[in-house]
Amino acid sequence: MTHTVISSASKEVIIGFDQPFVVIGERINPTGRKLLAEEMKNGDFSRVESDALAQVAAGAQILDVNAGIPLADEPGILAKSIKLIQSITDVPLCIDSSIVEALEAGLAAYQGKALLNSVTGEDERLERVLPLVKKYGCAVVAISNDDSGISEDINVRFNVAKKIVERAQDHGIPASDIVVDPLVMPIGAINTAGRQVMALVKRLREELHVNTTCGASNLSFGLPNRNGLNAAFISMAISSGMTSAITNPLHTELMQAVRGANVVMGNDPECAAWIRAYREPLADGAQRRGRRGSRRRSTGS
Amino acid sequence: MTHTVISSASKEVIIGFDQPFVVIGERINPTGRKLLAEEMKNGDFSRVESDALAQVAAGAQILDVNAGIPLADEPGILAKSIKLIQSITDVPLCIDSSIVEALEAGLAAYQGKALLNSVTGEDERLERVLPLVKKYGCAVVAISNDDSGISEDINVRFNVAKKIVERAQDHGIPASDIVVDPLVMPIGAINTAGRQVMALVKRLREELHVNTTCGASNLSFGLPNRNGLNAAFISMAISSGMTSAITNPLHTELMQAVRGANVVMGNDPECAAWIRAYREPLADGAQRRGRRGSRRRSTGS
Repeated sequence: MTHTVISSASKEVIIGFDQPFVVIGERINPTGRKLLAEEMKNGDFSRVESDALAQVAAGAQILDVNAGIPLADEPGILAKSIKLIQSITDVPLCIDSSIVEALEAGLAAYQGKALLNSVTGEDERLERVLPLVKKYGCAVVAISNDDSGISEDINVRFNVAKKIVERAQDHGIPASDIVVDPLVMPIGAINTAGRQVMALVKRLREELHVNTTCGASNLSFGLPNRNGLNAAFISMAISSGMTSAITNPLHTELMQAVRGANVVMGNDPECAAWIRAYREPLADGAQRRGRRGSRRRSTGS
Repeated sequence: MTHTVISSASKEVIIGFDQPFVVIGERINPTGRKLLAEEMKNGDFSRVESDALAQVAAGAQILDVNAGIPLADEPGILAKSIKLIQSITDVPLCIDSSIVEALEAGLAAYQGKALLNSVTGEDERLERVLPLVKKYGCAVVAISNDDSGISEDINVRFNVAKKIVERAQDHGIPASDIVVDPLVMPIGAINTAGRQVMALVKRLREELHVNTTCGASNLSFGLPNRNGLNAAFISMAISSGMTSAITNPLHTELMQAVRGANVVMGNDPECAAWIRAYREPLADGAQRRGRRGSRRRSTGS
């Protein structure tokens, strides 16, 4: 049973097949958020702070932190964001950048064992990021594309993931510290995108024994009612063995699908988390509003 | 590829691994519906009629019809209900009774190839129902319990299903006309109920090559937010290979989960059904309300 342990100074989160699904909050990312980008660039981190707290309150177990702002001091802003977020919440963080210097600045600022986002199968990237993973003893998201781009053939994507896992082992990094992103394609363009991901997750789990993550909302790109489709997809991905996702915990439909999938997978003992999230108001409150009795039950927790 | 074909006089529905999931509307059933029971007993079928039309409008491809009213003429009421429903809608029907005489009266009244609900692994039931299935050339729901009751051991439930499929073959009924209900247990009581069903569905499909159905909402018995949990479960059951369910199509969350699962499974070509169900209002309507453009796209259908 593969356990990927991610931690802050005081809290540990385990990604694993026998664990509740881990939601990595994606909101702290200036890409496509002009106002947030402007604020972060100008040293105003109030929205970073409120986004962090809101995502944790909504159920995110890890927060992704990205400071990719064009023409800004990304390493400095990322390090500052990380220190700030670690001062107000105890959830572990996922340090996210396409710039290796920013990843290193983030790791240097971070307290605990981070999840680094990301390495790909590109040779240059592998040789720059894996030594950082080893040096800081963190875990890393491995994206299954390489120098030839993203393949529509899942065998190619599987082989890229395999290459990353093997190369990591050469650096002394265990497979349990690799979290593979099999890459979710827009199903409006590629009708088999859902089946592809589910088949790939199964192979990654059975043959490479690695945990997996994804940008779950990519699947619904270009389609109406994206939240509804993402909710169906995430519960199906979980049943195929996906163990985490980088996504928006503020979407209540998605979080309900995750909590429901945890129950169905048997990873919510006595359904305690489900009952906590959805139990009806207290009996006396219900009676005051004239409802027909209360269906609340004891949570045992 | 196993196809179970169910038909009315003018319409065919195919249950199959490569087909959109089939929702069998459960509403026309007086069990637990006192008013409906009273009305049906007194010859008032107005609610049967409106329930039929509402379920079809909500997306049910087949309607279950049950007339189980204590101390009433169940065979007569069932036959009358079936004739009435077939006069106002063209969807095929699932003839549902625990009384063999009622099943036969329903079959005699029905036009097309019905789905009979149900046979169990109990010897007496097998020997009374299977000849009817053969005589009328219908398909049948096979419930995986027998004279010893419902086992919590999925191997026992699998073996009951296998016995029914084999006994049906003795009667000249092909496996493609058997739709097995693996029995969904309340997960609040049995934590492994979800995994059990998913594992059983996989075996039924791979080893017995049969389609499957279930009472999806049993899973959430006793828990809060049942619709939310049922929605997560149904999409996961579909990804494990379940091909139909007897459930309530008026629950919009459940139907959204089914439509989403059809997309993810690749069984909604070009996402046409999803887009039809959820596309945003027409561009001119949207503009009149001052929305930011229209994200509507052509369905190609």
